[in-house]
Amino acid sequence: MSENRFVYDFDEPSEGGRDLLGGKGTGLAEMTALGVPVPAGFTITTDACRAYMRDGKEPPGGLDTEIDAHLVALEHKAGKRFGDLQDPLLVSVRSGAAVSMPGMMDTILNLGLSDEAARGLAQATGNERFALDSYRRLIQMYGEVVDGIDAHRFEQALSELKASRGVSQDVDLDAEDLRELVETFKRIYEDGTRRPFAQDAREQLRRAVRAVFDSWEAPRAQVYRLAHGIPDDLGTAVNVVQMVFGNKGEGSGTGVAFTRDPATGEPGLYGEFLANAQGEDVVAGIRTPQPLEQMRRDTPDAFEQLLETMRSLEEHYRDMQDIEFTVEDGRLYLLQTRSAKRTAAAALKASVDMVEEGLISKEEAVARIDPSQLDQLLHPMIDPGARFEVAATGLNASPGAASGAIVLDADTAEERGRAGESVILVRWETTPDDIHGLIQASGVLTAHGGMTSHAAVVARGMGKPCVTGCEALSLDTGAGTVRIGADDLREGDVITIDGGTGRVIVGPVDLVPPQINDDFQTILSWADESRRLAVRANADTPEDAAKAREFGAQGIGLCRTEHMFMAEGRLPIVREMILATGEADRRAALDKLLPFQQVDFEGIFEAMAGLPVTIRLLDPPLHEFLPPLEEATSDEMGDRIRALREANPMLGTRGCRLGLQYPEIYEMQVRAIVRAALAVERRTGEAPLVEIMHPLVGFAEELRRLRALTVETAEEEGDIAYLVGTMIELPRACIRADEIAEHADFFSFGTNDLTQTALGFSRDDAEGKFLTHYLEDGVLDQNPFEMLDQSGVGDLMQIAVERGRAAKRAIKLGICGEHGGEPASVAFCHRLGLDYVSCSPYRVPLARLAAAQAALAEAGLGAVSVGG
Amino acid sequence: MSENRFVYDFDEPSEGGRDLLGGKGTGLAEMTALGVPVPAGFTITTDACRAYMRDGKEPPGGLDTEIDAHLVALEHKAGKRFGDLQDPLLVSVRSGAAVSMPGMMDTILNLGLSDEAARGLAQATGNERFALDSYRRLIQMYGEVVDGIDAHRFEQALSELKASRGVSQDVDLDAEDLRELVETFKRIYEDGTRRPFAQDAREQLRRAVRAVFDSWEAPRAQVYRLAHGIPDDLGTAVNVVQMVFGNKGEGSGTGVAFTRDPATGEPGLYGEFLANAQGEDVVAGIRTPQPLEQMRRDTPDAFEQLLETMRSLEEHYRDMQDIEFTVEDGRLYLLQTRSAKRTAAAALKASVDMVEEGLISKEEAVARIDPSQLDQLLHPMIDPGARFEVAATGLNASPGAASGAIVLDADTAEERGRAGESVILVRWETTPDDIHGLIQASGVLTAHGGMTSHAAVVARGMGKPCVTGCEALSLDTGAGTVRIGADDLREGDVITIDGGTGRVIVGPVDLVPPQINDDFQTILSWADESRRLAVRANADTPEDAAKAREFGAQGIGLCRTEHMFMAEGRLPIVREMILATGEADRRAALDKLLPFQQVDFEGIFEAMAGLPVTIRLLDPPLHEFLPPLEEATSDEMGDRIRALREANPMLGTRGCRLGLQYPEIYEMQVRAIVRAALAVERRTGEAPLVEIMHPLVGFAEELRRLRALTVETAEEEGDIAYLVGTMIELPRACIRADEIAEHADFFSFGTNDLTQTALGFSRDDAEGKFLTHYLEDGVLDQNPFEMLDQSGVGDLMQIAVERGRAAKRAIKLGICGEHGGEPASVAFCHRLGLDYVSCSPYRVPLARLAAAQAALAEAGLGAVSVGG
Repeated sequence: MSENRFVYDFDEPSEGGRDLLGGKGTGLAEMTALGVPVPAGFTITTDACRAYMRDGKEPPGGLDTEIDAHLVALEHKAGKRFGDLQDPLLVSVRSGAAVSMPGMMDTILNLGLSDEAARGLAQATGNERFALDSYRRLIQMYGEVVDGIDAHRFEQALSELKASRGVSQDVDLDAEDLRELVETFKRIYEDGTRRPFAQDAREQLRRAVRAVFDSWEAPRAQVYRLAHGIPDDLGTAVNVVQMVFGNKGEGSGTGVAFTRDPATGEPGLYGEFLANAQGEDVVAGIRTPQPLEQMRRDTPDAFEQLLETMRSLEEHYRDMQDIEFTVEDGRLYLLQTRSAKRTAAAALKASVDMVEEGLISKEEAVARIDPSQLDQLLHPMIDPGARFEVAATGLNASPGAASGAIVLDADTAEERGRAGESVILVRWETTPDDIHGLIQASGVLTAHGGMTSHAAVVARGMGKPCVTGCEALSLDTGAGTVRIGADDLREGDVITIDGGTGRVIVGPVDLVPPQINDDFQTILSWADESRRLAVRANADTPEDAAKAREFGAQGIGLCRTEHMFMAEGRLPIVREMILATGEADRRAALDKLLPFQQVDFEGIFEAMAGLPVTIRLLDPPLHEFLPPLEEATSDEMGDRIRALREANPMLGTRGCRLGLQYPEIYEMQVRAIVRAALAVERRTGEAPLVEIMHPLVGFAEELRRLRALTVETAEEEGDIAYLVGTMIELPRACIRADEIAEHADFFSFGTNDLTQTALGFSRDDAEGKFLTHYLEDGVLDQNPFEMLDQSGVGDLMQIAVERGRAAKRAIKLGICGEHGGEPASVAFCHRLGLDYVSCSPYRVPLARLAAAQAALAEAGLGAVSVGG
Repeated sequence: MSENRFVYDFDEPSEGGRDLLGGKGTGLAEMTALGVPVPAGFTITTDACRAYMRDGKEPPGGLDTEIDAHLVALEHKAGKRFGDLQDPLLVSVRSGAAVSMPGMMDTILNLGLSDEAARGLAQATGNERFALDSYRRLIQMYGEVVDGIDAHRFEQALSELKASRGVSQDVDLDAEDLRELVETFKRIYEDGTRRPFAQDAREQLRRAVRAVFDSWEAPRAQVYRLAHGIPDDLGTAVNVVQMVFGNKGEGSGTGVAFTRDPATGEPGLYGEFLANAQGEDVVAGIRTPQPLEQMRRDTPDAFEQLLETMRSLEEHYRDMQDIEFTVEDGRLYLLQTRSAKRTAAAALKASVDMVEEGLISKEEAVARIDPSQLDQLLHPMIDPGARFEVAATGLNASPGAASGAIVLDADTAEERGRAGESVILVRWETTPDDIHGLIQASGVLTAHGGMTSHAAVVARGMGKPCVTGCEALSLDTGAGTVRIGADDLREGDVITIDGGTGRVIVGPVDLVPPQINDDFQTILSWADESRRLAVRANADTPEDAAKAREFGAQGIGLCRTEHMFMAEGRLPIVREMILATGEADRRAALDKLLPFQQVDFEGIFEAMAGLPVTIRLLDPPLHEFLPPLEEATSDEMGDRIRALREANPMLGTRGCRLGLQYPEIYEMQVRAIVRAALAVERRTGEAPLVEIMHPLVGFAEELRRLRALTVETAEEEGDIAYLVGTMIELPRACIRADEIAEHADFFSFGTNDLTQTALGFSRDDAEGKFLTHYLEDGVLDQNPFEMLDQSGVGDLMQIAVERGRAAKRAIKLGICGEHGGEPASVAFCHRLGLDYVSCSPYRVPLARLAAAQAALAEAGLGAVSVGG
């Protein structure tokens, strides 16, 4: 092939691929090669665009000649001539870079029309309205895109015309009206450009191609490239495609079709057809489309061809396709094919079926499920057919939907929830004091807080819907009233929240239940065959542990003992312990807590029999267990609250700092763990697999002392096997993982706190404040509390893995931060070589899938990139 | 030498050095080799100790025989026999590991005495009291150390005897009393051991040696080794040394001497002598010692020998020595020599003199000055001769001493200070609102806060004495009263604080002024010849800048613009800016601030003409400029204070996050900088060297945007040369220094914040709380806010240096955290290859010295390790 070649027909081979032909051009060439009937046409390469930019916006020599030659070929295929005035060949011009990008020119349709050609087209099709409508659309698109005329001017003329005719829809304008509109549009064009609208088809085409080239450098496109690291010198290709029309009579029509049912995944054609219509008629919803079967009667040949084509497309792309097609005079043209959007249930069903049909392998089935979509199936959802108005939107803090009566305090939520009523707990924000209300509520809605606020974390742990950071929400607990957007409500009024999208709706909405079916289990069992990462759950209660096991968790990676401190009947003892004036009093209170903790641990060990359980000793600062100052019930309590107050509690006396300052607290917890393990072993004959974890370690000396405390205390209680490890959640712990590893059997990355400290982002202060600004403004692409900041926090983790393993090759490594259930972060953990991820029970299936996908990607079996 | 040799005489060569002979044994052998008269004796090696421990506390075979052989040699030298009953050779047994360590046995004196030998000694010396006193001391030390008898029992017997005699001092007991005491001590010994006190000298020696070996494993020594990473299997050596006595008559005596005056450094002997006395008589202070010249008359030969010895010791050790000696029957024995403790002034004087005398090189002179001691000379100090009682002790937050009247609020401090009165501002803690009072006070005392609290940082910046975290201080501002320890005081009462030691004294104390003399300048000029690191200052005002230059600063490494926001007349405008409801109002307020900032910058540029000035744009969160909520003067202000409140302000909306959210603030600051630079250039003909620094950058994208904002704004104002850089104060910034470097001309490590985030230590919450507990309990050896945590924070810095330089080889690197003036941290910065350190003006001389010492250490010219 000559170096100077700039144009390829869709049916010509080329070696340049997407880089040369762009995404759209490649897809059209690919379909053509498959024998799929697509409109004919050709692609002007990115090389031509690059030459144009390099030469000061001068098309490369020979380009026009090449275009002309390919036009001739196109005319032969179409049996019509471009620029013909009787039955003209019309074409569209579309941009098509290797990466699709907002801000670039998209499409100009109907190139080749002029005053006369429009008349010719009217006669040839017998449809004057169609010809004039096509022409006025050309003038508008061309005027806007090629000559930069304000779109608003055309829109206004159209609005004025409709107003003067007393109609509201474009389709209500008749041919006469459209003829007038064409004249008006031509005047607007002349007005804006000081020259008449080009009547020469070749001039139209030449200028449209240059406009596509120019649009590569449109400001929005430049900004987008900068933001996404796309090189500025890639350039775009240009596709010139024959126009086809489905409104040429009864032998014509248009439709959309899926190769399988996108709602259920059931095999078999699924779609709609409208005879004698253009695609836009389907969109406008004027006429009711027919089922595809209608085609079998109207255009049987085209229908057969469609069936055949869809079969071969699915075979080729090895995935369910969603196509748009047009039949012109009995002849089928595919305008587009792409991987079909589908419900999670359909995705599972189709994948399982395709494996059974031998179309794809199990690994491919696993690789192509979208993990975040899978999440939908685990929770009640708003019925896709339900109609409602959204009153406000907050953060999608915990997926699932719930309808229930508004309650404004935890006690009422507990009481009414216990009585069997569905209630939504609505608060400015929640605190650990609200835990009993959260347990009984069907969902939680808060005005403040981000994705990792107390409400969000607890709700995710419980698999309960939660919307946080709903700025349009305000409440007056005294008056018992709530304002949501423009709606004034009272306690007891019913609302619906959708924690998967953050939507808040006034009144009840139909919900559909979770859909954990056989397909779901099948795909996950295939995923388990592929993954290397183990998946554990974060669970603090026997109920959570059982739920986690049901979802396939292979152990508990994080059992937070402080949640047990918050439970009913214990908080008063915890406060007694905190208010104790000396070690003796503190020990007395702790002695009372011990049996409670022991019972909790026994339940968890039994639920996780045969699987490891990692128990983290007390982590939060003590002031979290005390009420707000104004609710202090004694002077001593007030003094203690004041004394424990911290300027930056996140960086204060918590984690192992507590354990070192008040060793009797950790001692009690270790005693409770060992006693529980012994009791369970006696009862069941099987010893629990115990892992004791110390939080917030930054210095090896901290862990050395705490390990000694753990071992000494455990030995006093009896003989059990257990591991001792630490959270790695401070940058210093990552840096000095070598020293810390000497005292640790395992590391568990606490990426929530590690993100806070590595980035200097307080999650309480970032979300809804500067972080929200950063995300809106594009300083950051992702919320680092949702998706692991791989190049920052992740790099620290890598340092920790390298140094930790260098010091102790066999050290066990896991992650128990929120990121442990986020697919991209799970993939990162896989690449990092961790042994396991741990996440909330409801995210365990996602993590299993994501872990498998990471392993498959590593083996070169990544998700299929779908053309179209 | 045979492998099995375990004993060396002091005058025998050995190759094992400190590891084999321990520190004390090596020193004694070294002095013996130098020809310095020391008592004769021998060392039992650490090998023997190791063999003893290895063999289950059994001395190695042949050890006793070797000891006997060396005893014989010792008897020959002494002319007396060990175990003789007429004129016995007495010896001391002393432990001596390679590293000295608390908790180990130190010394048993007078071994060789028994009932009969004591009588013989009494006759031989004609001093019965001396003989009996020596004997009772032996029984006590031997009983305690060898047989573990409670020291308390001996002490109590002694106290009871003194009480029954109606005397208060040991020396008031006569021979008769001591004879009774010996009998009592023997009874105590028998009581505790069920056997009589050993009358056999060799048995005494054998058991004493084993006691030394055993003391290696004393719990306190084990803990110490663990804490300091000293291996457990080093073992200790044992030194057996002939006893000499200065109380044998007029030809005997004892004394201490310095080779130069330890107070002034003036050359020439300086010391005291007491004829016919033992060392302990000097310590007991019963008799007044004579000047050394007295010796010339009493024991002229010994005096000449002393002069000669001291000269050779100073020549050998190339440093001023402090010796203890005894003259026994006209014969001189040196008991100890060591590097002399001296005042800072003396250290300088002696070093400069020694260079002039040709004794040491300039580099050695520089290498051996203790930088922290140098600090004393820069501030007023409490007169070393002053007598006073310390009422309370806090943290030594900023060096220097001051006396003044207590004032309890900043307004009063400003008023009375302006009026010329010396006042000490006494507060629970200070805030930026107190700045005007701090400026006028002579010193600051706070009950709360650590070494990096507001009061501490500001005071250090101003070179003003400050004591923080004084827990024994409480105050009632309403009543105008203060309690310091046990003292109740009122506003206006005079107190004295010593910020170099943390002491607080009620009433005035004599002070001595700063002593910046020629020696000081000479040493620093020599230091400048050796160092590679440049030294800049942190300075926010023209006055500070001038002071910094006077101290030798080579530029400003950190000019904090927020301090200008706090100044009088500006805070109301700043608050107007913060309370503005939109960008337009905010810009209007900023326009009013601009001229103020410009004037500030002009002054600083002029003070630093020819030297670089790094200006940091606004860093603190906006709420720091607003009053406490209860002082809000309007509802709007109250709302704004509430809205700006943060859970963890350290990790909130501050630094460049502010600059990105409200770009108009940084724009104003850049404008003020450029206008000031242009104005100064016009006035002086010299363009200032401007460096603009963005704080709290964690992502390259932040700096990319801020650099663009800086450049665009600067271009609008005119044409000046400047650099743009960033603080590196977040772990993520260290990790991604490569990406950040692409947008930075320089990095300045903000090690205060980097320490907070890397360690997860809020300095406000750590000091006085868990960090204090950690330091007291030995979890940490050093406060990481005072001395850089080299293995954690330092390692992050190293990653940043490596990655930053890899991306941009020529990037300029500095540090502007508090650590920039701390000697060990400066040395670390040198090793890291930074270009400069920056610290408060008053620490610039220290930093110059420390930087030179680091360069010298690198070249193998480190501080001399002084034996003795």
